[in-house]
Amino acid sequence: MEAARSKPKLDMEKIVSLCKRRGFVFQSSEIYGGLASVWDYGPLGVEMKRNIRDAWWRANIRQRDDMVGIEAGILMHPQVWVASGHVATFADPLVDCKVCRQRFRADQIPGDRCPNCGGELTAARMFNLMFKTFMGPVEEDASVVYLRPETAQGMFVNFLNVLNSTRKKLPFGIGQVGRSFRNEITPGNFIFRTREFEQMEIEYFVKPGTDEPLHERWIEDRFNWYLDLGMKSDNLRLRPHSVDELAHYAKACTDIEYLFPMGWSELEGIANRADYDLQQHSKHSGKDLTYFDEESSTHFFPYVIEPAGGVDRMLLAFLVDAYDEEPDKEGIRVVLRLHPSLAPVKVAVLPLSRKDPLIAVAKDILGNLRKTWSVQYDDAQSIGKRYRRQDEIGTPLCVTVDFETLNDNAVTIRDRDTMGQARIAISDLVPALSQRLGVC
Amino acid sequence: MEAARSKPKLDMEKIVSLCKRRGFVFQSSEIYGGLASVWDYGPLGVEMKRNIRDAWWRANIRQRDDMVGIEAGILMHPQVWVASGHVATFADPLVDCKVCRQRFRADQIPGDRCPNCGGELTAARMFNLMFKTFMGPVEEDASVVYLRPETAQGMFVNFLNVLNSTRKKLPFGIGQVGRSFRNEITPGNFIFRTREFEQMEIEYFVKPGTDEPLHERWIEDRFNWYLDLGMKSDNLRLRPHSVDELAHYAKACTDIEYLFPMGWSELEGIANRADYDLQQHSKHSGKDLTYFDEESSTHFFPYVIEPAGGVDRMLLAFLVDAYDEEPDKEGIRVVLRLHPSLAPVKVAVLPLSRKDPLIAVAKDILGNLRKTWSVQYDDAQSIGKRYRRQDEIGTPLCVTVDFETLNDNAVTIRDRDTMGQARIAISDLVPALSQRLGVC
Repeated sequence: MEAARSKPKLDMEKIVSLCKRRGFVFQSSEIYGGLASVWDYGPLGVEMKRNIRDAWWRANIRQRDDMVGIEAGILMHPQVWVASGHVATFADPLVDCKVCRQRFRADQIPGDRCPNCGGELTAARMFNLMFKTFMGPVEEDASVVYLRPETAQGMFVNFLNVLNSTRKKLPFGIGQVGRSFRNEITPGNFIFRTREFEQMEIEYFVKPGTDEPLHERWIEDRFNWYLDLGMKSDNLRLRPHSVDELAHYAKACTDIEYLFPMGWSELEGIANRADYDLQQHSKHSGKDLTYFDEESSTHFFPYVIEPAGGVDRMLLAFLVDAYDEEPDKEGIRVVLRLHPSLAPVKVAVLPLSRKDPLIAVAKDILGNLRKTWSVQYDDAQSIGKRYRRQDEIGTPLCVTVDFETLNDNAVTIRDRDTMGQARIAISDLVPALSQRLGVC
Repeated sequence: MEAARSKPKLDMEKIVSLCKRRGFVFQSSEIYGGLASVWDYGPLGVEMKRNIRDAWWRANIRQRDDMVGIEAGILMHPQVWVASGHVATFADPLVDCKVCRQRFRADQIPGDRCPNCGGELTAARMFNLMFKTFMGPVEEDASVVYLRPETAQGMFVNFLNVLNSTRKKLPFGIGQVGRSFRNEITPGNFIFRTREFEQMEIEYFVKPGTDEPLHERWIEDRFNWYLDLGMKSDNLRLRPHSVDELAHYAKACTDIEYLFPMGWSELEGIANRADYDLQQHSKHSGKDLTYFDEESSTHFFPYVIEPAGGVDRMLLAFLVDAYDEEPDKEGIRVVLRLHPSLAPVKVAVLPLSRKDPLIAVAKDILGNLRKTWSVQYDDAQSIGKRYRRQDEIGTPLCVTVDFETLNDNAVTIRDRDTMGQARIAISDLVPALSQRLGVC
């Protein structure tokens, strides 16, 4: 089960510090001391998050004939969570220490004494992880609604609406990106496990009997998606669930795991959920959610393959994977070797001086490149320092405007990874950058 | 104040029905009877919503030197809402009918008897519009958190973090797109006023004294954004707030209003909030949120210009604005004259027959166009019916693959608005479509 390289390669603290310093991720409400386990994305983080979402949407929705997207509400009818089983069973066993009052998940600690102070623990009680709130003007039981703990149910309850409006035939899937909320007892590891998080989930509906090969295909497709975005294969592995790990309704599940600083952890799960969800919603809503198969002239509940990943932990994995330190003559060069599709800034425009003729040319170039890409402009400090700043945030290419530019109408393109430089005519700049960046 | 064309041009019902039938917007949790005033976006709705967000992000964040984006949590520290004034004053006056139990906003009904049954009303009591929930395992006052009623505060509490990580100088702004929640007493008008909704907000920080011209500039920029995306100027107007409408801290506010089916209503508000927000957060957090101005060597609280719009109501406005009915020989042609940037599907590929050689060519074209655009493939029913289906969802261009294609390696491009057709070599298809669609 262990891949060749099983030792975490860097401290989480280095990533956390880079994220804060350069504006990827900030602690939520930091000026008020922070809100436990919620994080905000800064100027670079939000661009990278958008890039991850877009890459996922492109590969899984837009470029496939058998997929459509939706965006459902975070608030849903409370019966949805009764039908799905979340009201009854989406709970963890909670214990309190009678001495230091700290709380733990009973299934995550050994013995019956507090791991913090050795005090006696209370008996475990089940604690439901759904956040609840009250809709309408009065707080009463009838108006309790939940913040969704997963986006998946939005796809199931819209199955008929999607079928009727798109006339899709099996196999087809519905995908969605959006925030979910779980009142975790012990969140942690930076943005890996948080109480508010963002999911990218797919519910892929198939004819029973065709589910096993299609499950395999999705595992392969999703694994390759990470590789296509430059993730190192040594840091990725598949982990099929053992039978006793599976939810009672699931036929099979395989996790894609990444070698995070804290060890191998789940990036995405790809489950074969059989027909549990549509059955449950049919029963609880009284609506017929079967599919009519024209070929066989029969009605049946489709089986469901569910590739479900978390955006925040993907972003963390891509950052960890891209992080590199290289000794060089000025000390250590920190470089994020992000795939161009994911890099928050694609190109930096760097005029060698703040004097007028250079600035005018540089601003002109900036305005032009910005039509296509996310571009940063930097004229502060030495060119070496500016390259370092761009390396540290993963900018694949720098365009340097120097005094020679005024004579030859050309600029220097500098490559993040090789640090190689090439002189390019300004008139050829867009195609030259396009070629180096690919589609992104 | 009234524009030339002040009569609503079509029934909301027509839009609601089209939205459901074609998969733009569905009622949330519809199989369970729906959840009041929450809506889900279907396969076409989500593409259109993405397009609106992208167009906004491109124009307001990516293509500007003075703007950066962030994405903050929906859950924030509860002190944020104390500082902002929401805990104390974000409330509407609520009355109940003692006879029929219906609820009303006291400020929206005349007299003191129920507009529904004539019954006696209770005295008005203030009802706070923030949804609250409980973070951590126990429901106690200390752990109450709110679902944000606006994204704005995410920008204010991150002001220092953004300043330190980006080294921006005034004037500069922070923008954000995300869901907000308000427990409205009387939501309504389809997706216009809902309890869960999506905002696109900007907080633009300026030096006091420069705020008035910069406020004017933002009003103009935001107004032009709608025009650039094809909205008819007759259906748009600016409405400056009168002094008694203004929040106590606001210097000025102008709404951009659209002529919705129910009448002129707010699409976006552009407020001059002076230094209220940073002052408040400085006071409540104990952190110094002043800006150090190098030119004058002074510290001060920047003023804030806030252009704040709602994605859902923008989507509704763009749909209403684009909706058109034309009599033709087969009855009525319904056409959504959406700007290409906003159309959920840019191109439809329509093979004239389902026979093999045509299908192969058509699928080839589909695969190729899909690298760049959102493309639909349709081979069901007559070509006339297929054009109608695409017109109704606003697809700007159709590519028809016919039997002649097998001989001349060319296809027909058909234009949604003019219904004009042009024969184009397959090898010229991508540039021909690019030219017609523009950047989108």
